Amino acid sequence: MIDQRLLPTREVIRQYRDYRGVADAIRTMVIRGAPAIGVAAAMGVALGMRGVSGAPAKARFDLVAETLRATRPTAVNLAWALDRMRRRLDECSSLDEAKLFRRMRDEAIAIYNEDIAINRRLGSNGAQLVDANPATVLTHCNAGALATAGYGTALGVVRAIREAGKKVSVFADETRPFLQGSRLTAWELHKERIPVTVIADNMAATVLRNGGIDCVIVGTDRTAANGDVANKIGTYPLAVLARRHGVPFYVAAPMSSIDFKCATGADIPIEQRSPTELTQFAGKQITPEGVSIFNPAFDVTPGDLVSAIITERGVAYPPYKKTLAALKSG
Amino acid sequence: MIDQRLLPTREVIRQYRDYRGVADAIRTMVIRGAPAIGVAAAMGVALGMRGVSGAPAKARFDLVAETLRATRPTAVNLAWALDRMRRRLDECSSLDEAKLFRRMRDEAIAIYNEDIAINRRLGSNGAQLVDANPATVLTHCNAGALATAGYGTALGVVRAIREAGKKVSVFADETRPFLQGSRLTAWELHKERIPVTVIADNMAATVLRNGGIDCVIVGTDRTAANGDVANKIGTYPLAVLARRHGVPFYVAAPMSSIDFKCATGADIPIEQRSPTELTQFAGKQITPEGVSIFNPAFDVTPGDLVSAIITERGVAYPPYKKTLAALKSG
Repeated sequence: MIDQRLLPTREVIRQYRDYRGVADAIRTMVIRGAPAIGVAAAMGVALGMRGVSGAPAKARFDLVAETLRATRPTAVNLAWALDRMRRRLDECSSLDEAKLFRRMRDEAIAIYNEDIAINRRLGSNGAQLVDANPATVLTHCNAGALATAGYGTALGVVRAIREAGKKVSVFADETRPFLQGSRLTAWELHKERIPVTVIADNMAATVLRNGGIDCVIVGTDRTAANGDVANKIGTYPLAVLARRHGVPFYVAAPMSSIDFKCATGADIPIEQRSPTELTQFAGKQITPEGVSIFNPAFDVTPGDLVSAIITERGVAYPPYKKTLAALKSG
Repeated sequence: MIDQRLLPTREVIRQYRDYRGVADAIRTMVIRGAPAIGVAAAMGVALGMRGVSGAPAKARFDLVAETLRATRPTAVNLAWALDRMRRRLDECSSLDEAKLFRRMRDEAIAIYNEDIAINRRLGSNGAQLVDANPATVLTHCNAGALATAGYGTALGVVRAIREAGKKVSVFADETRPFLQGSRLTAWELHKERIPVTVIADNMAATVLRNGGIDCVIVGTDRTAANGDVANKIGTYPLAVLARRHGVPFYVAAPMSSIDFKCATGADIPIEQRSPTELTQFAGKQITPEGVSIFNPAFDVTPGDLVSAIITERGVAYPPYKKTLAALKSG
């Protein structure tokens, strides 16, 4: 996997041969983005299932899965991928060690490949919501190829708009504190020659007020059954401002990121990350020693601020409790 | 003056003996904050008025004032201080060189001393708006002692709350891109042992939603006659979110920052600053080379989102066109 902590200045590929390495990579954000975390976790499970079979395989799975599950609490794709790998294990645990490993590896690769296909369908569904040409999209964080197995969710919609033959440009919030916008979204779009303008998070209100933004599109780490959307910190204020300025606010959500076990956003655990993300930058101290820090990694946008939720199965509109359930059963 | 670019890790005092040095200091943000810029400009004018008298003094003044005026367009205190120094010059331009310089120097020192007195009165007026004890205030950027001759405007209210015998703590937005919150507000409050918690700008919405914030207090670089408030980029979204969550939004505005010549916020010029504020951090590149940057230094908060404007002459409530005019004439 590409080490996302070093982008955009260095492109370093890291290889892991051990599930603990994958867990560390997720925890330290070598890899991030809910779908990418899910795929990485599946790969981590496969790595962890070498050389076991039968009852020991199930015990090993529990150890591996709990190590991976403990890395980051908010993205539901992680749990989703572990559950899927568990089901696969249940089907093949009686096979010999080599066969069992191959089945687990193949399942992880299937999750990887399906993720790209899902993003393409999602992108195509989302592109149909955007009539403007040229279109200008405002996004937050990175819900792009880097956050997925490839193509991206929110940026998948942007790619699909272009593939439909339209012109599209993007305003990218820099997304403090990890700078996924300025470092990752800008890098990814610039590579594909999609025009991108980076702004500080606190400038999005001015950009929305100035006009010219056709829609806001963001990803999600976990969406509740009622359409409440947990996503990178700063998403909620963006939704409030989009509503104030009459700009549609879209969430690109693969079905794997919708957690039907969470009735509302209040049920979604919000990860608090290290104070050093705010006290230091590139090793340099930027706050006085000894001050307090509050560093929630995500916030929850109430479904009533979300104009539409775009999935690979179609687009859901309010009331989401009903429409998301219909997409699930349909 | 203390070099605010180096805080909080280094406390370096810079001395200037030439108005051009002062102009550079304002432009490069060695010193920033609307009232502090006004005081610095007055001092810069005084430095520039050495060794001149009569008509040459007036010509010199025009050169010095235009150099200083061109440094930063949004803060009206700069123009206000230059106008005041001009009036002083008109009274004393026929004096000999030494006397003229002393009068100009004394006027600059008077502006400095008055600024502190104004902030104390403003702080006392503002503290009366905050009943809670302990009180928790959310602020943006730095409207503190560092932004003024001393004591501060928004943070002057915080100081006055404490001087009234109450407990007070502060949430400080880090304030991208220049980090006035994490570097300056946190430094200033921490030094005075006022508890401060630093958050990224995009976390303020979560803090406001979580409850426990008694009010938002910010400064202003220029407030229009109708109460529209130009202040550091990110103030406007904060006002929108405070309104959404029922939290009072106060602006600490010395009379010198109210521009009665601007009917509305649309008349206030908004400075665009260098892209490097967003593309680099501490010399390190954080965006890919070649992406576009939009970097407005200020935004305008409509007066209808402002709960009260606190001045040294009293507190104004909507409708501001009437109440601010009353404070001016009263």
